[in-house]
Amino acid sequence: MLNSGRRRLFSALLQVHKRACQPSRDMRLVQFQTPHLEGPHLGLESGIGGGVIDLNTFDSTLPKTMMQFLEQGETALSVARRALATQLPVLPQSQVTFLAPVTRPDKVVCVGMNYADHCKEQNVRVPKEPIIFSKFSSSIVGPYDEIILPPESEEVDWEVELAVVIGKKGKHIKATDAMAHVAGFTVAHDVSARDWQMRRNGKQWLLGKTFDTFCPLGPALVTRDSIAGLLLLMWEFREFQSARKSQGKVLSQDPHNLKICCRVNGEVVQSSNTNQMVFKTEELIAWVSQFVTLYPGDIILTGTPPGVGVFRKPPVFLKKGDEVQCEIEEIGVIVNKVV
Amino acid sequence: MLNSGRRRLFSALLQVHKRACQPSRDMRLVQFQTPHLEGPHLGLESGIGGGVIDLNTFDSTLPKTMMQFLEQGETALSVARRALATQLPVLPQSQVTFLAPVTRPDKVVCVGMNYADHCKEQNVRVPKEPIIFSKFSSSIVGPYDEIILPPESEEVDWEVELAVVIGKKGKHIKATDAMAHVAGFTVAHDVSARDWQMRRNGKQWLLGKTFDTFCPLGPALVTRDSIAGLLLLMWEFREFQSARKSQGKVLSQDPHNLKICCRVNGEVVQSSNTNQMVFKTEELIAWVSQFVTLYPGDIILTGTPPGVGVFRKPPVFLKKGDEVQCEIEEIGVIVNKVV
Repeated sequence: MLNSGRRRLFSALLQVHKRACQPSRDMRLVQFQTPHLEGPHLGLESGIGGGVIDLNTFDSTLPKTMMQFLEQGETALSVARRALATQLPVLPQSQVTFLAPVTRPDKVVCVGMNYADHCKEQNVRVPKEPIIFSKFSSSIVGPYDEIILPPESEEVDWEVELAVVIGKKGKHIKATDAMAHVAGFTVAHDVSARDWQMRRNGKQWLLGKTFDTFCPLGPALVTRDSIAGLLLLMWEFREFQSARKSQGKVLSQDPHNLKICCRVNGEVVQSSNTNQMVFKTEELIAWVSQFVTLYPGDIILTGTPPGVGVFRKPPVFLKKGDEVQCEIEEIGVIVNKVV
Repeated sequence: MLNSGRRRLFSALLQVHKRACQPSRDMRLVQFQTPHLEGPHLGLESGIGGGVIDLNTFDSTLPKTMMQFLEQGETALSVARRALATQLPVLPQSQVTFLAPVTRPDKVVCVGMNYADHCKEQNVRVPKEPIIFSKFSSSIVGPYDEIILPPESEEVDWEVELAVVIGKKGKHIKATDAMAHVAGFTVAHDVSARDWQMRRNGKQWLLGKTFDTFCPLGPALVTRDSIAGLLLLMWEFREFQSARKSQGKVLSQDPHNLKICCRVNGEVVQSSNTNQMVFKTEELIAWVSQFVTLYPGDIILTGTPPGVGVFRKPPVFLKKGDEVQCEIEEIGVIVNKVV
C-alpha cells in the first residue's frame, strides 16, 4: 500500500508523464536526404510514418549529422525543441530518403539472450550477466534500405530489437544515473547469419552479425529526455514500481513496456513485449560502461524476443525477395527488402 | 631454378626495393600534440624514436587527423612525400606528445591464433580459417599512454601485434589486390583480460579485449606505398618467393619478415618473427572484406606470437607499476606503463 504522501507523488508523477506524452512533445529525430538538398540533413519526423521538418533549414548553425548533434547535447536539443513548438513546413515522406538516425557511431553494442521468452525458446537458462557482442558500424543501413543476402551464408535470420542511443559520455555509470545518458530509442534489425554465428569463426559471433547491411536502424531516434528524470525517480520508489506492474501499462512511453514484433512478408514471426527484457536499459548501460567509455551516438541493441528462424522446426531463413518489417510500439517500423 | 629472364626480373625487383628502402624514403606518419599547438596535428616522425616534422605547418590545407588524411588518399600522401623531401625543422621528441596514429577508426579487427608458434604453445591446431574478433575503437590509446588495470579483472595479459592500417575503401578485395588497400603498418598491444575473454561473457572474447586503454598503438603509421606494388609482383612469382625464403631476409621491409617482441619490465616475454603468421596481410584483407567493407583508417591486429602470460606455468599477469614495451623491427616500439 502507498502511504498518502507517496500516493500524492505517484499522482503527480503520472500527471507530469501525461503532459510529457502529448504527441506534440514527441521528438522524433531523423537523418534524411532529398534530391534538392546537398548531403544528409537533420530533421524531425512528424509522427510515425509522417513527413519531415528540416532542422538545418530552421537553424543553419545546427550540425547536419546526428553524431555531431548528440555531441552538442542540450544546446542542440533545445533548438530542436523550439522547432517542434513552431509551425514549420513538412516535407512529404515521398520526397524524403531516410538514412539511419545514427551513422558511424563509435560502437554498436549488442546483447545476447536478453528476452526471457527467447531463452525459453532455446531451452537455455536466463543469463545471470548480460552477454555482450558487437557489430561494426559499417553494417548500419537506413530504415527502408535493402538487406544484401551474402553469398557466404545460407542461414540469414531476422531479429527485431529495441535500440538505445547514448546521448552523454560516461564510464562506470550507475544504473540510477543511466537514463540521463540516453538520448533516445530506435528500432533495430539485428540481421544474423547463423552459420557464421554458431558454427564458424571459432564460435565468436562477430562475423555472423556484421556483414554489410546487417544493421537496419530507424526511422527516428525517439528522444526520452522528458521521461528520463521520471524513470530516475521511479527507480527510487519501489511502491510506485510495483503499483505500475500491478496496473499493467500505466506509462505509455515506458521503453520497457512496448509491443515489439517482426513480420516477414506480412506474417508475424516475432511478437512480444519489451517487458520481457532480462536486463533493462539502465542495467545494460551500467554493465557495459564498466568496460568501456560510452560516447554520444553509441548504440546498444538490447536483444530479441522469440520467433527467430533458426529455432523453428524446420528452421526458416531469409531469401531474396523477402520483406522484413520490424516494429516497436510508439517508436516506429522499419521495412527492409532482402536482395 | 630461375630462368634467365626471371632472374633479371628478380634482380630488377631487388634494385627497386633497395631504392625504396632508403631511410629518407621511409614515411612515418604520426598524430601529435604540443603545448603550443591547438589540438592534434599530423606529422612525420624522423626515424624510429626521432623528433617530429609538423605537416600542418608545412601545408595548412592538409587535414589534422589521420582519418581525414587517409580518406584524401594520394592527394594527401603526395604532400607528405614533398615534406619528406624538404629540409624542415624537427620538433624534438621531448616537446611532443604522441597520440595513436589513428583514432576513432570505423573498425578495429583482431585475428586470433594467427602465429604458428603461438598455436603450438596452446596445444591447439593451426586454424584453417582466420578467427576474427574485435575491439571497440574507444580502447585505442597513444604509444606512450598508460594502460589502466581495470578492477573488474584479475588476469590482464600482454600481446604484441603487427597492425595493418587500411588506406583505401574496398569490399571483396582479392588477395592479389590487397596491398593496394594498405596505408601502412604500426605496432599494437592487444591487451587482454583473460578471465573475461576465456570464462565470462558466454565465451565471447569482446569484453576481455575492449576495456578502455586496451589498445595502445603507434608511434607511427609506417607507409608501405612504395613496397605495395612490389609485393603484388612477388605474389605472382613463386620462384622469387622461394628464392627469398632460401636466402632468409632479402627484403628488409617485408612486413612478413620482421622481428617482433614484447618486454615486461625489461625482460623479454615474447620474441618471434612476423614470418610465423598463419594468415598474412593479403589473406586477412581478402577474408575480412568478404564480410565487411573496409574503410580508410580501419585497423587489423594480425595476432600475437607465443609467450603470453596466461600460458606460463604458473600464469603471470600484469600488475600496477609494470612497464610493457612492444617492438617490431623497422616499425617502432611502444612503451606503456600499467597503472
